[in-house]
Amino acid sequence: MRIADHISKLGTETAFAVAAKAAAHAAAGGRVYPFHLGDLNMPTVQTVQEAAVRAMRDGKTGYCPPAGIPPLRDALAQDANGKRGTAYSMENVSVQPGGKPVIAKFLMALMNPGDEVLCPNPGFPIYESQIEFLGGKVLPYPIIPAGDRFTFDLDALEQCVTPKTRLIIINDYHNPTGAELSAAGRERMAALIDRYNLTVLLDEAYFETHYDNKADSLVSLPGMAERSVLLYTFSKKFAMTGWRLGAALGPKAIIDIFNKINVNYESCTCQFVQWGGLEGLTGDQSGPKKIVDTLRERRDVAVDILNDTPGVACIKPNASFYLYPDVTELMARKGFGDNYDAFAEDVLAQTGVSFCTRLHFGRPLPGETRRYIRLAFSGIDLADIREGLGKLRRYATR
Amino acid sequence: MRIADHISKLGTETAFAVAAKAAAHAAAGGRVYPFHLGDLNMPTVQTVQEAAVRAMRDGKTGYCPPAGIPPLRDALAQDANGKRGTAYSMENVSVQPGGKPVIAKFLMALMNPGDEVLCPNPGFPIYESQIEFLGGKVLPYPIIPAGDRFTFDLDALEQCVTPKTRLIIINDYHNPTGAELSAAGRERMAALIDRYNLTVLLDEAYFETHYDNKADSLVSLPGMAERSVLLYTFSKKFAMTGWRLGAALGPKAIIDIFNKINVNYESCTCQFVQWGGLEGLTGDQSGPKKIVDTLRERRDVAVDILNDTPGVACIKPNASFYLYPDVTELMARKGFGDNYDAFAEDVLAQTGVSFCTRLHFGRPLPGETRRYIRLAFSGIDLADIREGLGKLRRYATR
Repeated sequence: MRIADHISKLGTETAFAVAAKAAAHAAAGGRVYPFHLGDLNMPTVQTVQEAAVRAMRDGKTGYCPPAGIPPLRDALAQDANGKRGTAYSMENVSVQPGGKPVIAKFLMALMNPGDEVLCPNPGFPIYESQIEFLGGKVLPYPIIPAGDRFTFDLDALEQCVTPKTRLIIINDYHNPTGAELSAAGRERMAALIDRYNLTVLLDEAYFETHYDNKADSLVSLPGMAERSVLLYTFSKKFAMTGWRLGAALGPKAIIDIFNKINVNYESCTCQFVQWGGLEGLTGDQSGPKKIVDTLRERRDVAVDILNDTPGVACIKPNASFYLYPDVTELMARKGFGDNYDAFAEDVLAQTGVSFCTRLHFGRPLPGETRRYIRLAFSGIDLADIREGLGKLRRYATR
Repeated sequence: MRIADHISKLGTETAFAVAAKAAAHAAAGGRVYPFHLGDLNMPTVQTVQEAAVRAMRDGKTGYCPPAGIPPLRDALAQDANGKRGTAYSMENVSVQPGGKPVIAKFLMALMNPGDEVLCPNPGFPIYESQIEFLGGKVLPYPIIPAGDRFTFDLDALEQCVTPKTRLIIINDYHNPTGAELSAAGRERMAALIDRYNLTVLLDEAYFETHYDNKADSLVSLPGMAERSVLLYTFSKKFAMTGWRLGAALGPKAIIDIFNKINVNYESCTCQFVQWGGLEGLTGDQSGPKKIVDTLRERRDVAVDILNDTPGVACIKPNASFYLYPDVTELMARKGFGDNYDAFAEDVLAQTGVSFCTRLHFGRPLPGETRRYIRLAFSGIDLADIREGLGKLRRYATR
């Protein structure tokens, strides 16, 4: 039996290996503080659960249109219009089994083999995996610290562009750094997109995991909605990671292709799950608010402890549920240099704190001198954050 | 904005157009008898619903492994082993959001551009669509009437094979005809697969929608499980079409690739849906039995009326919930020749009976002289079957 050649180009999320090491530590009797998980340890918003159960019992268990149930498509369009100033209708919406399928379908719909795709680095590893699997070329552009925030290095981004550059992936607000474009940065990004005639995948998975509730979107700027596919997910806002519900919003010509791909790949997204999501979008909003409040408290506690830890410096992100502390000095002092794996293993063994590193988010760029790790605070309670990061602080002090 | 070139090769299920015409007829005040639907008008098996709700309330709402929850993978392996005599373990199982994703992932994992894929014709249109979209070449092999059953034309199949033929798709038991391999046919098919060193997608979506409960599988024959990916779906057996739950079973080397594709495309299948499916597989079996009993009664009534209709001859299938009557004489007598669309429109206008035709199941093969339509009896109750097909009979008598 012969495997298809292109499978050799298919990447993965190497964070699964971290989970395996944490599980081994636990199995050996060790205490694990799971900062590696990009999942929420909170129940799905109650109103969403009730609506999904009601829909199931009402017999909403058969096929539905490949594009999604019309009321959900309409609600997603109205939700985006309200928060981003767009003018979408349901024809601009394709419901998906999660946010992630939007990445592959965007590339399938718009990328020819050999096309170049601008892609954030560090960044979500599936971007690179899918671009290369589908025959494109990754142009990584840096995400860098800038004062009290991470941001997009637009100078470096512009230097990457060549005549073969067709697409750009923008993850605003960004995993793993929490980076966001400033208002001026967003204007400049829009001008670049326009000048180089790029089509955009705008991954806003963390748009509403935002701590001062003033998230802005590139698609609010003139001409950008016409050039962009917006990745929407229910996973974070409603604690629905395992439900697999998301959507693509964009120009009808592209959304029609997404729907045709849906017919070919999965027929439709689970129908009663969609009715649950509809209630989430249009019903009582106290559930999602409570999730953000809980995450904000965790963020504040974690950042304070990290910044009180010798050799560690942590920017406080305004969005996402990740911290991306600079641990260059700590790794150096402990004798690990740039050996992330050895450092992570030592910290796990000594403290039980489990995390991903810079290496899980794309191939390092030339000239990188600072070392970073990623701590997710979405899957660990406040008491364990205090206890785990307290142990990390003592480890750093020794 | 430029759409990717290969999108022009992406097909679809044209049955959606039939649904649109039926809806228009209904909107104009006409009565519709929906024989075009490949969906079940029955509630999901109750025990499955209860288990899924229980899992949701228990917080099984987060991400799970990309391959699926271990107990479901194990139960699927044991279920196949019990019914097909295989020796699968959970490492041979990749849970999917429906049966359909198995088609695309099989081709992604195993087909290089230019490879030839043997494919049933008539047949499920997504096979052809995905083969061509992913750069392969379709080799259609005929499904033909043979006495009281449809079957696979193995002589014609063997004549199709060239040195570039790598893969074969077998849909045993078959949509739209209900065709099945005889025991001797299955032996010969296995010998062909072995001789030409083919890898198999064995789509057994209707294996348990089988009316004498003696379904046999190609993977029971020596060496076949090692060469095959089995497409399993919960949709038909448990009336779970809209839940989107299925699986691929096959050699670990291929299943590992399926799992890696899962990481890239959709992360995982909805977790609590998987717990529902587990209860379906391992719990009380009276629900699925009742579904088959209901379908059997509908089949018997429908076939009797059709065979009492002038110009119509209908084989009674032993599996699937489709009928594939020969309507050559009726179309000729009504003056439609080979104009399926005009015939279907006239029948809808005159009787309200809505159906798909041969044209919805792949490009007709050279030399076809008989005309067929497909009537699904899964989405219509017994009384409406009697009433609708009664009107068709009167239409044929006029």
